[in-house]
Amino acid sequence: MAREVRHDANGPDVLDEDDLGDDGKVFICRCGLSDTKPLCDGSHNGTTDEEEDTLYKYEDDDDEKERRVIDELVFADE
Amino acid sequence: MAREVRHDANGPDVLDEDDLGDDGKVFICRCGLSDTKPLCDGSHNGTTDEEEDTLYKYEDDDDEKERRVIDELVFADE
Repeated sequence: MAREVRHDANGPDVLDEDDLGDDGKVFICRCGLSDTKPLCDGSHNGTTDEEEDTLYKYEDDDDEKERRVIDELVFADE
Repeated sequence: MAREVRHDANGPDVLDEDDLGDDGKVFICRCGLSDTKPLCDGSHNGTTDEEEDTLYKYEDDDDEKERRVIDELVFADE
């Protein structure tokens, strides 16, 4: 139940009361896969069948996300 | 200016007006490195000297983050 997600941003998003929904809440993406970050878009529903001890990478493939298993991260200093 | 960040969560965090600061704002981590996610803790300041076209991995090393260059992601289906 884990995945590697590419982050390009170098600073935070700023939300205020206008970002709260009618219920007074705002849902913040934590799975890393939302297309509407920092807001949740329900993409986490595609992660519920991830296997334990397996590391994944999700790549945009047209209008869905292709999921691949990461075998290894190779570092330049290795 | 990019990094791979491990995500384990399978659902969003929920914030409400109590999470807004005295200025009515809440700062949401987008660099992926905050230790107080989903809130920004200023960790993005450590990313400002990342080089273009280089992919990094930050690993907790005692009380600071060790930065390594990722050479390659190897997929199981390759």
